[in-house]
Amino acid sequence: MHIKEAGIGEGISEVIVTTKSASGEPNAAPIGIITITNEDENENKYFVKLYKGSKTLSNVQETNKLAANVTDDTVLFVKAAFEPLAESQFSLFYGFPVLKEANSWILFDCAFSEKKAESGNFLFQLTPIAVKTNRKEVKAINRGLNAVIEAAIIATRYAIMENEQDRAEREKLMALYARIVEKCGGRREKEALEILQEKNKL
Amino acid sequence: MHIKEAGIGEGISEVIVTTKSASGEPNAAPIGIITITNEDENENKYFVKLYKGSKTLSNVQETNKLAANVTDDTVLFVKAAFEPLAESQFSLFYGFPVLKEANSWILFDCAFSEKKAESGNFLFQLTPIAVKTNRKEVKAINRGLNAVIEAAIIATRYAIMENEQDRAEREKLMALYARIVEKCGGRREKEALEILQEKNKL
Repeated sequence: MHIKEAGIGEGISEVIVTTKSASGEPNAAPIGIITITNEDENENKYFVKLYKGSKTLSNVQETNKLAANVTDDTVLFVKAAFEPLAESQFSLFYGFPVLKEANSWILFDCAFSEKKAESGNFLFQLTPIAVKTNRKEVKAINRGLNAVIEAAIIATRYAIMENEQDRAEREKLMALYARIVEKCGGRREKEALEILQEKNKL
Repeated sequence: MHIKEAGIGEGISEVIVTTKSASGEPNAAPIGIITITNEDENENKYFVKLYKGSKTLSNVQETNKLAANVTDDTVLFVKAAFEPLAESQFSLFYGFPVLKEANSWILFDCAFSEKKAESGNFLFQLTPIAVKTNRKEVKAINRGLNAVIEAAIIATRYAIMENEQDRAEREKLMALYARIVEKCGGRREKEALEILQEKNKL
């Protein structure tokens, strides 16, 4: 199954992962899909690292499935990182919750691969079982878009680690990324930054 | 003329700008196209800031034209930043040099707008005169791709400013971006980083 055409490329692809609980409740969270490249692209291997205590992990343990939603909507990334998405933002793909507005959906089977001893995080190997591309486009690189993603990662990591030592460094990087968004971003990136800054204050 | 569909969106679009001299010699350099958004997208205004002493500036002064080449090929960005591209990488679009491999081309008329008193840099207003989309795709966000662009910007700015005070800060950021490329990038991003690190040593 060719999932490169659906946007999952080499290295780590930042997507919004949707899952559902055994009782069918949907969840969305920004997560990286890890592609281990093989000479023959049909033999690429896909993995995902899931944090212990996360809703995504417990859902995957219950259903053994997740969907990767490929999008470059920074507002969606930031919202999914910090709050439950509204039910109206979900659609169904082979009966599995996905995000309506995503550019593509890749539904994966998840097989437990490894539990990291130090962190308690879980590694799952992913096998694509269905793919749909909704929208192709051409878009120039926007540094503001990238900066929102970096800022969101810093903000969510802080919430997990609470390491006071790194606080000054974190604030400096957040300020750098905010300046890049202000200078280079479009309206959507500026909106995402505002949400992020609100969350970061709490 | 709708150039949003060709990838020039809100904020600053990072593209490779191709130009030619009066005698027809092509040049390529990574440059940001600035979009000033209007409620009615047909009335958006486009600008570009060109550095004094740059080949792009003298070419635009000679021919009053430039082409924006939309691509996310980081190797192309890094090469265009530091060295002349091979003639074989150019093609012609309405007789104007563009990059064969770009996802889209937008040919602009350039009208002198302003000379910045302090920097001596020039601002030109751009009017699109021809557009071609060669390839649409869907691609997940890759932090490695973004990190190469940020690292390239830092490296080229240093070459221009030579401010020793910022050196430690610059090296720290370069190391951060290199770690992101190593962790998240694909082969193309890692190749771009290697070129960048070679150039950065000189």
